[in-house]
Amino acid sequence: MSERKKVVIIGGGFAGLSAARALQRASVDITLIDKRNFHLFQPLLYQVATGGLSPADIASPLRGILGQSNNIRVMQGAVTDMDLKNLSVLMGANSVSFDYLIVATGSRHHYFGNDSWERWAPGLKTIEDALTIRRRVLSAFERAEIEDDPERRQAWMQFVIVGGGPTGVELAGALGELAHHTLRHDFKSVDPVQTKILLIEATDRLLPAYPPSLSGHAAQSLMRLGVTVRTNTTVHEVQADFVTLAGESGHERIATRTVLWGAGVKASSLGRRLAAASDVEVDRQGRVVVEPDLSLAGHPDIFVLGDLAHCRQDGQPLPGVAPVAMQQGTYVGKLIRKRLRGREGKAFHYKDRGSMAVIGRAAAVAEIGRLRFHGFWAWLVWLFVHLVNLIEYENRVLVLIQWGWNYFTRNRSARLITFEQESVGAAHVRRDGPIGAGGEENRNDSDGSMAKSL
Amino acid sequence: MSERKKVVIIGGGFAGLSAARALQRASVDITLIDKRNFHLFQPLLYQVATGGLSPADIASPLRGILGQSNNIRVMQGAVTDMDLKNLSVLMGANSVSFDYLIVATGSRHHYFGNDSWERWAPGLKTIEDALTIRRRVLSAFERAEIEDDPERRQAWMQFVIVGGGPTGVELAGALGELAHHTLRHDFKSVDPVQTKILLIEATDRLLPAYPPSLSGHAAQSLMRLGVTVRTNTTVHEVQADFVTLAGESGHERIATRTVLWGAGVKASSLGRRLAAASDVEVDRQGRVVVEPDLSLAGHPDIFVLGDLAHCRQDGQPLPGVAPVAMQQGTYVGKLIRKRLRGREGKAFHYKDRGSMAVIGRAAAVAEIGRLRFHGFWAWLVWLFVHLVNLIEYENRVLVLIQWGWNYFTRNRSARLITFEQESVGAAHVRRDGPIGAGGEENRNDSDGSMAKSL
Repeated sequence: MSERKKVVIIGGGFAGLSAARALQRASVDITLIDKRNFHLFQPLLYQVATGGLSPADIASPLRGILGQSNNIRVMQGAVTDMDLKNLSVLMGANSVSFDYLIVATGSRHHYFGNDSWERWAPGLKTIEDALTIRRRVLSAFERAEIEDDPERRQAWMQFVIVGGGPTGVELAGALGELAHHTLRHDFKSVDPVQTKILLIEATDRLLPAYPPSLSGHAAQSLMRLGVTVRTNTTVHEVQADFVTLAGESGHERIATRTVLWGAGVKASSLGRRLAAASDVEVDRQGRVVVEPDLSLAGHPDIFVLGDLAHCRQDGQPLPGVAPVAMQQGTYVGKLIRKRLRGREGKAFHYKDRGSMAVIGRAAAVAEIGRLRFHGFWAWLVWLFVHLVNLIEYENRVLVLIQWGWNYFTRNRSARLITFEQESVGAAHVRRDGPIGAGGEENRNDSDGSMAKSL
Repeated sequence: MSERKKVVIIGGGFAGLSAARALQRASVDITLIDKRNFHLFQPLLYQVATGGLSPADIASPLRGILGQSNNIRVMQGAVTDMDLKNLSVLMGANSVSFDYLIVATGSRHHYFGNDSWERWAPGLKTIEDALTIRRRVLSAFERAEIEDDPERRQAWMQFVIVGGGPTGVELAGALGELAHHTLRHDFKSVDPVQTKILLIEATDRLLPAYPPSLSGHAAQSLMRLGVTVRTNTTVHEVQADFVTLAGESGHERIATRTVLWGAGVKASSLGRRLAAASDVEVDRQGRVVVEPDLSLAGHPDIFVLGDLAHCRQDGQPLPGVAPVAMQQGTYVGKLIRKRLRGREGKAFHYKDRGSMAVIGRAAAVAEIGRLRFHGFWAWLVWLFVHLVNLIEYENRVLVLIQWGWNYFTRNRSARLITFEQESVGAAHVRRDGPIGAGGEENRNDSDGSMAKSL
């Protein structure tokens, strides 16, 4: 019936969403496939992990953003394979055919071959990750409060964050704020100000992708929040109740119950499949090496974007950050529109507008063009840039109010402990079993694990 | 050291929190024990379940509310037993001694001996319950959108709500709003307006505890939102893809993938233990029959409050609603203060200020004293009463903004599908296993189940 070209976009992150928006008024039929029903504003995920914001404040339903465009169909589901010869995408038994394919399925944190560490050192990529970190961090204080043994109590009050990039720096700063301000007067047996927060970085400075002067300012701001920064240090082992660090002076074992991971990422495995099917290289992080127009070599109508793409500019691969993904999405959307009119476009060129990281209240570092600044003004710019980039207007208002509250009261109202991991399985067992008089009271809650180890 | 009397409160719901607040300035040492680290404003839980509000909007950290009072210690953990002779409460190996004990551990939904139904028909008592319902309801529309078979698609578009009390009525109304307004233009293959919502009530009218005229208005408002109300009908069976109803004209089987449970509650099992230890009766719902001053017979210093108490007034047991629990908490707090001064108090008397239920935008029913009204004004009163009763000022502002948004745009921004049940267990397995090239892309998400059945 329709002679309109079909565009399939896999992934509703920054890259996929920008591509969809650039094609919103083009005469193409778009199918956007995502495993989740929402777009996630990942740069603020660390604030969910530390109880400052709620998940819905930084997530927008994809149907709300795009569903009302007549030429866009949103499908929630997982892509199981891609057929590059027959130009179709498989979702289990279903298949969706395409003329143009945009693959932007992003990346996941990565443990450099030590995947067993994930259990003890959660990363921060999804809402579930953020709620897991929130639960662990808040539970650690609760456990410290009821722990009589001083050594074990100290292990609950010791936090180790692995990775001194923006995620690690922002998590460490937010934990410092939480311990030194938000929770300061909340406990009777322990003093949250005694919390030890250790930030580990493998290279010789924090924020290695930023200018050295900003690294220094970030380290100073973190120290003021009680964070200890250890550079030239890597993680040798992670277990339930300790980590072993490898630094210049050999190995060191630190008793801790809470390790957070911000050290490495690995591209979605769809990238390796694309690469294998088209004889294209992937880099060490599993990213697909793309052509200057972001297409797959030999497949001019298939594009790879965002964290999944290895795209070189000035001899360097572009970093896996939101602005790169957004510019790439918009670029490919416009390129397809040009092609539909029989024209060709220029190669993709990333316009770097700068980088920023926030450390705490009125403390941030920023590099914008040739300007490098830190402190209050960097923080204000950070606030502004993140607010205007939130997708929905309602989210902007809700986030602004909560930031205002947080600024003046130091309170973080979303510090809820929900979904204790052990309970989910346990609840399943209990659900189908009979309700005995003695076993029932734990059905009401999610802390079977807490009761067991008290 | 301290000669101050020790008060232990189990449960930080409406009853326990009100008791703690009434004792905040008394010269007693209070320990408040709760399995969760927050107080939950349960009357608005249905709005979390239907994507209108975020969990943190209606939950307040107990330490934030109480932790800064010098005489209150908050402990997160589960009470495993109570020793009425030695006046102590056990939390695993720990014990906490008391002079006065207040037990207010509430209730849980109840399946009248059919506990296997819980798997298919979740109830609504906790944040996890609400997020489970939100996930199931939103996923049902997503599944309908990609389902080709018309019969199976219809089963995804059929919702059955069991129980015509306030919870069932409010859930049905919110689902009607969601289908007929919020999601109206969001799908391409299905029309959410075709959603069928069936509300089942065992007695002969909705809201059986309210005056009959209000039941009629509630039924009319629900019908305008596309809800079918079936009275004199009970549930005979619940399975994964159908329910069997038993009504006046025999059994009827309805194909549905989404059943929500608002039919019965059962008191926490601590009640039965208290009753057994003190030779006191429990009623059919497991509630402890208390003395006129809410104490346990033979134990004048042990009090049972809220949903856990069977307290008769004018020949009827008081209903398990927030105002009863709050008044009981305040009463017992004041009673203990009187006793400390060597005085005795009068029996507890509940002052009924009325009942309300909301059906949808500008539609509610209310009974306040002798006034009975419905529609816009009842809705405004409902809004006001719920807003002022939220614990934290910040929550009031956030809820008010979201309600305003919802009123003018019909949007519900918290409609996220998170924590797919099957994935939690699956993620556990994958975490410890090796990462194969083919198995990795599902790690990023929570929809293993979705991929399997597509």
